[in-house]
Amino acid sequence: MKAEIISCGTELLLGHNIDTNAAFLSNSLSRIGIDVFYHTTVGDNKERLSSTIREALKRSDIVIITGGLGPTVDDITAGTLANVINKDLIFNRNIFKDIGVYFKKCNLKLPKSAVKQALIPRGADRLQNGVGTAPGLIIKHEKRYLIALPGPPRELIPMFDKGLLPHLKKLRTQNTLIKSRSIRLTGIPEIKVNEKIKALLELDAPTTVGIYAGLCEVELKITTKAQGDKKADANIKKIENKINKKLSEFIYGYGDETLESVTGELLIKKKKTISVAESCTGGLVSNLLTNIPGSSKYFVMGITAYSNKIKMSKLNIDKALLKKDGAVSKDVAKAMAENVRQLADTDIGLAVTGIAGPAGGTRKKPVGLVYISMVTRKKKLIKEFAFTGTREEIKLQTAKAALDLLRLNL
Amino acid sequence: MKAEIISCGTELLLGHNIDTNAAFLSNSLSRIGIDVFYHTTVGDNKERLSSTIREALKRSDIVIITGGLGPTVDDITAGTLANVINKDLIFNRNIFKDIGVYFKKCNLKLPKSAVKQALIPRGADRLQNGVGTAPGLIIKHEKRYLIALPGPPRELIPMFDKGLLPHLKKLRTQNTLIKSRSIRLTGIPEIKVNEKIKALLELDAPTTVGIYAGLCEVELKITTKAQGDKKADANIKKIENKINKKLSEFIYGYGDETLESVTGELLIKKKKTISVAESCTGGLVSNLLTNIPGSSKYFVMGITAYSNKIKMSKLNIDKALLKKDGAVSKDVAKAMAENVRQLADTDIGLAVTGIAGPAGGTRKKPVGLVYISMVTRKKKLIKEFAFTGTREEIKLQTAKAALDLLRLNL
Repeated sequence: MKAEIISCGTELLLGHNIDTNAAFLSNSLSRIGIDVFYHTTVGDNKERLSSTIREALKRSDIVIITGGLGPTVDDITAGTLANVINKDLIFNRNIFKDIGVYFKKCNLKLPKSAVKQALIPRGADRLQNGVGTAPGLIIKHEKRYLIALPGPPRELIPMFDKGLLPHLKKLRTQNTLIKSRSIRLTGIPEIKVNEKIKALLELDAPTTVGIYAGLCEVELKITTKAQGDKKADANIKKIENKINKKLSEFIYGYGDETLESVTGELLIKKKKTISVAESCTGGLVSNLLTNIPGSSKYFVMGITAYSNKIKMSKLNIDKALLKKDGAVSKDVAKAMAENVRQLADTDIGLAVTGIAGPAGGTRKKPVGLVYISMVTRKKKLIKEFAFTGTREEIKLQTAKAALDLLRLNL
Repeated sequence: MKAEIISCGTELLLGHNIDTNAAFLSNSLSRIGIDVFYHTTVGDNKERLSSTIREALKRSDIVIITGGLGPTVDDITAGTLANVINKDLIFNRNIFKDIGVYFKKCNLKLPKSAVKQALIPRGADRLQNGVGTAPGLIIKHEKRYLIALPGPPRELIPMFDKGLLPHLKKLRTQNTLIKSRSIRLTGIPEIKVNEKIKALLELDAPTTVGIYAGLCEVELKITTKAQGDKKADANIKKIENKINKKLSEFIYGYGDETLESVTGELLIKKKKTISVAESCTGGLVSNLLTNIPGSSKYFVMGITAYSNKIKMSKLNIDKALLKKDGAVSKDVAKAMAENVRQLADTDIGLAVTGIAGPAGGTRKKPVGLVYISMVTRKKKLIKEFAFTGTREEIKLQTAKAALDLLRLNL
């Protein structure tokens, strides 16, 4: 079973929008064992769209077209599809009724253009749109399937998951599928990961490992093609164990987990409370820690003390210490962590101080110099970092490093 | 002059990566008047890549291939290109030298695979890679241009901008170009914007207006095709004035501006200092305000008071008030703003309190209920909001609404 994807929209060819639908669809199809060999993007142009559809029908069993189902003259997908399969467009009463309901719900008058969206190629089945007005279409044509989905991802994704996926699963002729698992690392650069698991990165099909570097983190993605879920899981497990052996200390999570979700869960599990004192990150550490549902169980207080005055008056940092070492120093970081912990009466105090730039650096204390401290009733930890990048990148790297220090010492 | 883009990479067809290069290249080409009519994505498969290149050469003057220039066996672009144009691959001494320098700089041993990256089709010019090891390629072939660029955006973008763009500008046969300008709005839903400027949204070429809705904001993008920069600017200005007339109160910025950059600049300009007290946003307001270089000029202190205990002890909120109205209430928001302003001795105090969810809502105070207050020595403003979405979406909408309240009342 082979599928291909055609994205329709001049805004894509102008680069005004990035096409995330093609990746979403390819990924979803690969998971149920349908191969995708081509994506093509064309503009809102009938001639080029129809020649692309014709070409796709020659080489693929399933052709999915995204976009161009809206109410304006630029929306040409339904008409072009009808033309390619030599059918006329007919008015669909049910679609029109649903569009009416949608506009009523939004408290808006039904526009004239609504009629256009209810015109679909004769013989097409429609896929209901729970979010917007554009209907999806499924057309069986000479043993091929032509499918049209709306362009906006918030309409396309639920329509695919609820309406199309069950249908596609029935079409599968074999049990082969592609499955992936992400292993997430931090505290180690990509090039070191590369060195440590070089042999695994060079594996050939059916099971391969990809490496992707992000800001402060590395993702290893194990992908396998196998007969059925069980075999796929076994293939993945085998490689995962090998990666674990070489890199376990740097692995913080799997799949969709984030550093903050893992750290938050750990805080809940260990029943620890935390308070945060921030300087250069400006509230980002607190923000990440409170992104997790249930964070009120562990997060008590955050103070962003930008000026020395506030560091002294609100975090009780010693004036003499600030004068001697400067605000960006080991001892100030440690005092911030200790004092915020005491002020909020929490198990843990976490503090960061540094220079996010672009201004404010000196030869002795350059932009990117950061101190992070974690203090409990028993421990006092302090680490120095030298980050590079833009202001926002330095803030993010600092916050992630603070979460990692916390995670490793909980 | 017509161009088309071919993205090469099995990871794209598996949906593991989203292709941002195609949008970047299309956008850059349209700005210098080179039309892009097709993007095609193929996997690391010689046969499909070469048939796609052959098809592209039939219909376009410039064919740009991204990806597949790395050192592994999966990297097939240079070999496939050589095959399509009937040339052999030859060893390029300069490329090999540069790769050597790169590995030395990274303190790594030169791997055997480095030789492969120095093999390029006979007659190809290379584009230097300032960031990685993969060279770019330019091949003139029967009046067409075949161009290969590396897949990682941080290598592709500088290579395009510095190496390829000056070259492409010389190839242009006409002065027609496409230019865009974004107008950014907040505080008004997309559907209302739609109503207010319906006629403009239905404009036909050469000047059109697109509407894109984000979380808490709407972008209007004016795009025009014109002979030369001056004419393009005039076309855009004409439409921009019309939009301004209808929507000026909601426009917060243009182009790449963000709500925080605009608000930060305004604070600097007006020489005002600010402190922030946050509950449900957990530090996000402070974080956004401190993303702007130079924010230490205006930002003095942020307090994230998650628990009632901290609201009382650190923000001096009256226990009786918390008991009577609850933490999520108008008067608590106002008291938080006023007290943080006094504690930090700033011109402005900004405060938010609300329920970010998913838990914690009641019938009277549902998830998404938010109060935002801004207090100065003379003014006390308070606004109520009812947001929907995930926890992170509610946090972001709250923070943006707080910045907007600030912006409008500075």
